[in-house]
Formats: sequence, C-alpha cells, structure tokens
Amino acid sequence: MKQSKKTVLVAGGDLRYVYTAKMLAEQYEVYAAGFSRQIVPFETVKLTESAGDGFPMCDVLVLPMPVSDDGVFVSTPFGRQNLSLRGLIASLKPNAIVLGGKFGKTAELFREADVQTVDYLAREELSVLNAVPTAEGALQILLEEMASTVYGSRVLVLGFGRIGSRFAAMLHALGAKVTVASRDVAELARAEMSGCRTIPLSEVLQHAAEFEVICNTIPAKVVTADILKQILPETLVLDLASKPGGVDLAAAQECSRRVVWALSLPGKTAPITAGEIIARTIFHILEERGAS
Amino acid sequence: MKQSKKTVLVAGGDLRYVYTAKMLAEQYEVYAAGFSRQIVPFETVKLTESAGDGFPMCDVLVLPMPVSDDGVFVSTPFGRQNLSLRGLIASLKPNAIVLGGKFGKTAELFREADVQTVDYLAREELSVLNAVPTAEGALQILLEEMASTVYGSRVLVLGFGRIGSRFAAMLHALGAKVTVASRDVAELARAEMSGCRTIPLSEVLQHAAEFEVICNTIPAKVVTADILKQILPETLVLDLASKPGGVDLAAAQECSRRVVWALSLPGKTAPITAGEIIARTIFHILEERGAS
Amino acid sequence: MKQSKKTVLVAGGDLRYVYTAKMLAEQYEVYAAGFSRQIVPFETVKLTESAGDGFPMCDVLVLPMPVSDDGVFVSTPFGRQNLSLRGLIASLKPNAIVLGGKFGKTAELFREADVQTVDYLAREELSVLNAVPTAEGALQILLEEMASTVYGSRVLVLGFGRIGSRFAAMLHALGAKVTVASRDVAELARAEMSGCRTIPLSEVLQHAAEFEVICNTIPAKVVTADILKQILPETLVLDLASKPGGVDLAAAQECSRRVVWALSLPGKTAPITAGEIIARTIFHILEERGAS
Amino acid sequence: MKQSKKTVLVAGGDLRYVYTAKMLAEQYEVYAAGFSRQIVPFETVKLTESAGDGFPMCDVLVLPMPVSDDGVFVSTPFGRQNLSLRGLIASLKPNAIVLGGKFGKTAELFREADVQTVDYLAREELSVLNAVPTAEGALQILLEEMASTVYGSRVLVLGFGRIGSRFAAMLHALGAKVTVASRDVAELARAEMSGCRTIPLSEVLQHAAEFEVICNTIPAKVVTADILKQILPETLVLDLASKPGGVDLAAAQECSRRVVWALSLPGKTAPITAGEIIARTIFHILEERGAS
Repeated sequence: MKQSKKTVLVAGGDLRYVYTAKMLAEQYEVYAAGFSRQIVPFETVKLTESAGDGFPMCDVLVLPMPVSDDGVFVSTPFGRQNLSLRGLIASLKPNAIVLGGKFGKTAELFREADVQTVDYLAREELSVLNAVPTAEGALQILLEEMASTVYGSRVLVLGFGRIGSRFAAMLHALGAKVTVASRDVAELARAEMSGCRTIPLSEVLQHAAEFEVICNTIPAKVVTADILKQILPETLVLDLASKPGGVDLAAAQECSRRVVWALSLPGKTAPITAGEIIARTIFHILEERGAS
Repeated sequence: MKQSKKTVLVAGGDLRYVYTAKMLAEQYEVYAAGFSRQIVPFETVKLTESAGDGFPMCDVLVLPMPVSDDGVFVSTPFGRQNLSLRGLIASLKPNAIVLGGKFGKTAELFREADVQTVDYLAREELSVLNAVPTAEGALQILLEEMASTVYGSRVLVLGFGRIGSRFAAMLHALGAKVTVASRDVAELARAEMSGCRTIPLSEVLQHAAEFEVICNTIPAKVVTADILKQILPETLVLDLASKPGGVDLAAAQECSRRVVWALSLPGKTAPITAGEIIARTIFHILEERGAS
Repeated sequence: MKQSKKTVLVAGGDLRYVYTAKMLAEQYEVYAAGFSRQIVPFETVKLTESAGDGFPMCDVLVLPMPVSDDGVFVSTPFGRQNLSLRGLIASLKPNAIVLGGKFGKTAELFREADVQTVDYLAREELSVLNAVPTAEGALQILLEEMASTVYGSRVLVLGFGRIGSRFAAMLHALGAKVTVASRDVAELARAEMSGCRTIPLSEVLQHAAEFEVICNTIPAKVVTADILKQILPETLVLDLASKPGGVDLAAAQECSRRVVWALSLPGKTAPITAGEIIARTIFHILEERGAS
Repeated sequence: MKQSKKTVLVAGGDLRYVYTAKMLAEQYEVYAAGFSRQIVPFETVKLTESAGDGFPMCDVLVLPMPVSDDGVFVSTPFGRQNLSLRGLIASLKPNAIVLGGKFGKTAELFREADVQTVDYLAREELSVLNAVPTAEGALQILLEEMASTVYGSRVLVLGFGRIGSRFAAMLHALGAKVTVASRDVAELARAEMSGCRTIPLSEVLQHAAEFEVICNTIPAKVVTADILKQILPETLVLDLASKPGGVDLAAAQECSRRVVWALSLPGKTAPITAGEIIARTIFHILEERGAS
C-alpha cells in the first residue's frame, strides 16, 4: 500500500522560503505560514496563517535561517504577525523532525519539548551549492563597479575554499588574470590546476599593488592596513567573508580605499535558486532518515 | 636616426576617448580637445581647448563615433563647447590621416579638403574585441534581472556571430543550459562545438516556452509577436541587436513580456576597455600604413 | 500521402563510409556497395556487390573522398573489387544527385552523363565539424610524444582558422600555455579572447626557442629552416597542414628536429565520428534541395 | 653570512627521479646515485656510484616510491647495482631528513638508526598535482581506444575525488557528456557545478547501458558482474583505481567486456612532470622544516 505523503510546514522566512516550499511541494503535502497568497502564487502550496489550532499537524517543520532572532518568534517578513515557536511546536506530530538554519538558543526549547532538530546549514552540499549564487552575486558587483571588463583584469582572490574556488574558476572562465593566495599548499596546488597564478598568503603585501580587484573569502582579518596602503587607489576590494569580515574597514576609510562588503549574497541575488538549494538539502536529509 | 613621434589629436567623444588618448600616448605625442583636466588626469595627454590656432598641427586626428551628429561639429560631452570640423581640418599637417567611427555626411567635407579618412568601426578586430564588453554588459543585465542563478538557467541565444558566440560561450562557462538558434548550418555546427544545444531559427516558435531567458543578437525582427505570445510570462527577453532591434516591442507590451533592449553596451559598461579597443585598432591602422 | 523513402547508394570508401551509411539509414533506404557484412554489421544497411544490374536504382549516390584515384574506379578498400564509375552512373534514377568529396577529373564523366554533383568537402559545416576529430587526433599525438603533461606546457599554434582555433581552445582548456601566431589581426583578437597569448606571424622566429611544442595549421611553408634552427632540440613540431605541408622537412632532418606530419586525422583517429559528420552534411545538402 | 647550500642525495628510482634531481638542483647541491650520465645529462646534478665512502655526506636523502621492495636495497632500474639502505644511512649527516614514498618495513631500519623520515606520498599537494598526469594518461587511453571523438561521447565517471574530478572536468572541457556517480551528496553537488550530470552510485546499474565509456576512480569493487552484463558490448571500461582495482575482471572476461586497468599513470605518461611534482613537494616539506 502506498504510504500517504508526509505533511511539511514551512514557517516564516524571506523570499527564499517561498521557493523552498514550492520545490518541497513536488514531493510532499506542503503548508506555508507567514506568507500571503500574493507572494506564494503556487496552488501546490497551501497557506495557513493562524497560530495554534489553525496549523495542520505536521511531520516536518521547516524554519528559516536563523531560526529566531529573539528565541521566541520566527521572523515573517512577508506575514502580518510573527509566529511563536511554542505554537509551532504544538503542531508537531510525534516523531516529527524540525529543520532550521542555526538554532542558537532555541535549541533548548526543542530539547525541552523532546523534538529532534537538524541544522541544514551544517550540511556540506548546501555550502557547496550556495557557492554558485554567492559567486554570481560577487560577479554582479564586479560588473557594476568596474569601468573595464572582467576579461583581462588582474584579480587577487584570497582563499580557495568553496567560495574562493568557485569565484576564481568563474573569473578565469571569463578571461580575467586570476591570482590566488592561500596559506595551504594543497589549496594552492588546486588553484594552479584551475588555471590561476598562485602566491603564498604571506606574500600578498609585496604583490598588493598589482591588482585591479582584490576579493577576500577568508574569515579572518587578512586584508590589513598595511595591504590597504599598498594597493592602487582605484582598486576595488570585495569582501565575501561573513561577520566580522576580513578587511580592516577603519584603515580602508582612512586611506580612501573602495571596499564592498557583501553579505548573504545567495538570498539577495538569487532567492529562487537559494530557496531550491535549501529544498534539495531537505530532500537529502529526509531521504537519509527514511522519512521521504 | 630615430624619427620624431607622430602628433595625434583626439577631438571630442565620451569617456571612452579619454582612455583611447591615454593608450595612444604610450606611443605618440597626444593632445586631447573637448575634455577637462579633471576627466583626463593623466600627464601624458596634453589638453588643448581653443579651436583654430590653439590646436597643434597634427599627423593623426581621432574623431568619435559617430563623427558628428549635425555634420558641422564634433560632440564634446565633457567640453565647454563643440568643436568645429572645419577648425579641426585646419589643424592637419599635409598627408595627415583622420580616423573616425561612421563618417556619414561628414565624409564629403574631408573629401573636399582632400584629406584621407579611415573608419575604425569597419575594422574586424574592433568588432571582435568589442564583443567582450558587450557580452559582459549583457551578463550584468541578466545577473541584475534574474531571481535565479545564471548557472542552471535555460537560455536561448538567437544568432551565433561575434556577439552571440561570445555571449553563448560565456553563459556556457557559467553553467547555463544554452540553446543557439540560427539560420546557418555552419553557425549551428560552431555553436554545437561550443557546448550549446542547437535549433534551426525556423523552430524557435515551437521551443519558445522552454526558456527563462531569450537573448537576440540578430539584426532583424526575429522575435515576433507569435514567439512573444508563446514564451513564459516570467521570461526575460534581452535584445542586443542595434537599431531598429530584433524584438517586436509593441507586441511585447501588449502581452506584457519583459524586454530589455540594450544598446551601445561597451561604452556604458566598460568605457576604459572600450576606449583601449579603439586605441588598439588605431595602432593597427597606423602600423599598416607605416605611420607608426 | 506519405512519400516513399529515397534510395541511397553508398559506394566504396574506407571505414568512415560504413558509419555514413549507418546514419543515413536512419532516414533513407540505404544500400552499400564495396563492403562485406562483417564490416557493416547493421541490418539497416543493405549490401550490394555486383556491378551493373546488381545495383538498385538510386536517388542519391554517395562517393568517397577523393571520388576516384584513376578516374575510372571508386576505391573499395573493404570490397573484393573496385567499382566502376560508369556502372554506378548506370544505376542512377533520373534527377539523381551524386555526392562526393573532390570530383577532380571525374567531374567530366558526370557532366557528360548529365548528372548533377555536389562536393560535400566544400561545405563549411563539414570543415567546422571535422576540426574536432582533427584536434583530438593532434592531442593524442601530443600525449603520446611528450614526457611532460600538456597541462603547463608552452605550445605555439600557427594559424587560428577552424583547426587552429579548436586545437588552441582545447589546449587552453587542458591548462597549456598557448601562444597563437597569425598574420591577421582579427584572428589574433579572436585568439586573445580564447585565453591565448598572441604574436604576429612575423615574430615567430625571435620567439621560437620559448616553446615545447609548435603546431602548424597554416597551409604554407611557415616553419622555415631559420625557425627550425632556433627551436630547442627537444621541441616537438606537429604539422597539421595538408600537402605540401608547412614545415621545411629537409631542414628539420638536417638539424635533427622532431617533426610529426599528421594527415587525414579525422578518418584515422575517429572514423565513426568522421563518417557521421559526412552523413550530417549530406542530410543538410538533401534538405536544402528538398530531396529529403 | 649566507648559509652554504644543503646537500641532497637522490638515490635510485625510475626516470621521474632524474627530473626530481634536476629540479632540486635549482636550489640545493644535488648528487644522484643509481643513474648514468647518459640518463642524467644535466651538469647541475653530480653523479655518485660507489656505495659506502663514495657517497657525500648529505643533509637530505631522497628515496623512490616504494622505498624498497625487499627491505634491504633501493631499486635502481638505471644503475648497475642496487643501493643498500644501510650504506645510504651511513652517508647521512646528523639531523639529516630522509624523504621517501611508502617506507613499509624499512621504517624500522630508519627508526633503529634514529633517523627522521617523511613520506612525501602522504602529502596532499602531491596527490592533487598528480591528478593531472593521471587524468592526461587516462585521456590518452580514451583517444587511442575509441573510434569516435571524446567530444560528444557519453562517459560515466565513478567517484569525484581528486582524480575523478580532474578527469571529469577535462572531459567536460573537451565536449564529452559526462555523468558522475558517487555515494556522497556533496561530491555530487560539486560534480553538478562542474557541468556534469549526476546519479547516486546506487543507480549505476539501471543506467549502465547508456554510456560509451565507464571510468572508475573509486578504490572498491564498484563495477560488478551485474553492471558489466548491462553495459553495451562496445563500451570501454577504464579502471584508474589502484590495486586491487574496482572492476570485477573475471566477470568482464566472461562476458567479453573491454577493460583497461591503468596503474601508475603519472610515471608512465609524464615522467618529467611526475618528477617535478615530487621535487615541488620536497621543497614544501623542507621549507616547512626550515631546512631550505
């Protein structure tokens, strides 16, 4: 006998979660709370608004990133009112799974309620796939800010992790002259294989004046005041590192360097894709748990 | 004995010509008319303002594209006053060469003065190199307009000439699923070799609903009302064809399709590179004439 | 009423024509003469051996390249006996089309018989598509002959036409450091856009000692004795130009340079693909003539 | 005062170690034992033959991979006699470093002599860089074995680690239609970002008949008898996994499938590059230890 479809409730979140809900609806019965029909024009996603008895009992609860700012409510930028975490917990079936991005202090709340949680932000495939919208968002900034073409431009990329490697490969494909700096010799070997010139991170200072663009992806203060003083006045510094960022902003201001600090690019530049990446990761999590 | 450097006068034009002048100054003695020192901060380019006796006598005169709107003056968007063509002709040495983009009716003026002219817009290498800033400008529009990533998106490119082939290759490199349509089987063979799926131009109508982006590069009305009715409401139509364009704009408005008609992208998105491309082409022209 | 399928006779030729026949059989009724069942194991292709009344009357006759060495017989390397052109002409229906590669003096024979001929070798899409097996064959030679990787090697490609551009792009994609030399500034602009360094053809001599591999695609004696003397002893010279070739072989022997002159690579390295390319070109020719 | 150069002894090994010695000689004083002058024509490398007092006292001893087959002698395919490990140990200065690839039971010998050893095969950058000659060797086999072009061919790559990812990217760049199979969803996400189609490893059986080439890089018996029965008779199976390999060879023989098991490709197809990779890794090891 064919099992009935699981019921999934997508509660709160920004535009990305509209597309997460839409994609999950290809396989599950999906309700969304905290959105209007205008923002969710897909018939396949059912809307539910009122907290408490208004929610359907669900097998899977999908929460945004971060799960909550205040530990009490889920943020609903598109809804009329915030959703209470306690109300959402009340709508869970026994053995339900709660999926969210960074639970923070709300973890305690779920533990008390004896509910299992999974942080989808901790999944490697999500980070890997998110590198694409991040790199495209960074590329958009470059295209907007530069008065010459990316093709032929001299770009330094600091770090060759998920984002650095994707961004460097993209720039190389567009014909930029890409140099990668890293502390790690294996990363440098990989960068070289991607067609990039490489330098040890310790030598960035002495090469700093060679580049039209410097893009940092290392989550540490690597673009120091000394480096900022060395770069050309017209050089664009792009920081993709999450808070607290990798560029000494005070020093940059002092010597009038152009810095763009770009945070949360996937949600900003490609909310549809970013939402689908969350949905795909959720499919994997549920499949692995036999809950699909 | 080393010959003295040729004297070049760059007269009028937009931001591109600032960089044309800068690059020419690497090899020639360069004057620029129609610009202020603020917009030309490079010491290597000498400024001259006053028409008539103020101009140095020059071996090469570089004029913008188009050479003139009214047949009398050269446009100087950065200068205080327009430059008269007759005044410029008066500053030419015997055997001087005049380089411009589209002479139009001004050709007659130069012929009368017995001055030789060369249209750098007619040079193939300029068209080839200009495909890069054009394609990057088109990519910027895509990145700005789309809510999903270019990676994975389904794009139809109409035409596989200089611009179509560059843009298609760029999108393919970024991971888009690119289909190319053309009337010419050899162009389709080339497109296939660039990793694109191909369809005859005659079959665009029946495939129109498959794409998230349709980009036209063919200088003819190929995106007809019939095609516009078939495409998805959210599809972005990008027209890169010069006037009169390849999209039936009236039909597009009637059925509420999203169309961006992008003209003169090189000068808008990458004036430095566009100016350098003009300078490089001028180097070639002068080299071939033994005037370098 | 559905028209009956055209009858096609593929007469003679090497292994490629087995696959030409196989692909044509997807759309036409196809007979092959000059092959055994062992070499044509596909039921969709009917074999016919005996000249004269043995042949079916056909709408389309496909002949190999060149059509004939002696002007009398078609070469049949896989058959028991050569096929006489007069016998084949006798099997043509009125208004039949004869497709071949280089008719040479046999053209006269067909003209006398009032039969229309089309040379598929003259079709641009065939040349474009054949660049792929040619470039792959050249790559195979490089991989076999070199004791270091193609990745990172310094390669000079002479010419940037169909074959040069494909080969250079392929090498660039594999991580080689590719320099392209050409007489034509537009070709050099294209090469630069493909990620290659460029030099004018006139400067090859002074750069000759910089390369581990020199690959010629220009159908003229461009790799002169002077250049051969300048190159490193271990440099591999690969000539892809058809007869009489672009390398001074006598000079190469005198100064002990390593030269590989590779002719007719498509048929040798990828007979299946080469045969399919001929078939695809034939489809186009027949479609254009409304004969499909 | 400038420190005197370190003395390095390269003892034994195949052709790769000739180029390792040559590259090390750019920075150190290098002796090579187990080679003739014919095979090491570079003046910068000094030859030494006789064991015992013949060897110079050295700071660094470089041994091949594996260090020894019998635990007593180092293999010297180019020398007149094998080199005894005890004799080599006797030539070490105090605090010398011994670098080798897989010490096996010889580790005990060095421990007894209180000599520090480093296995360069365990270094990640060596594995990363070696993926290039391995992938090129695999490509050469494909080009030699296939009668159609790599371009357009349907290839399945099993695994997306260092070798699988390099090989898949290379094939994609050449225009092959690449599918990657893996157990790991993050690997599949990476493969997708490289332009490949992806399937879970568990679904290889049901897709097995779709491919012209199947290339395994997973060090486990993943190409089972069931899969071999499903593939097309003409499909080429290429196994790049080290011993015991990933293909059921007995089953392959039984159902007459074409299998090429390619081992140690770097040393075979690109000994110069393979030797340079070893030298580069040794530079890193010595730099990190402050011994450079």
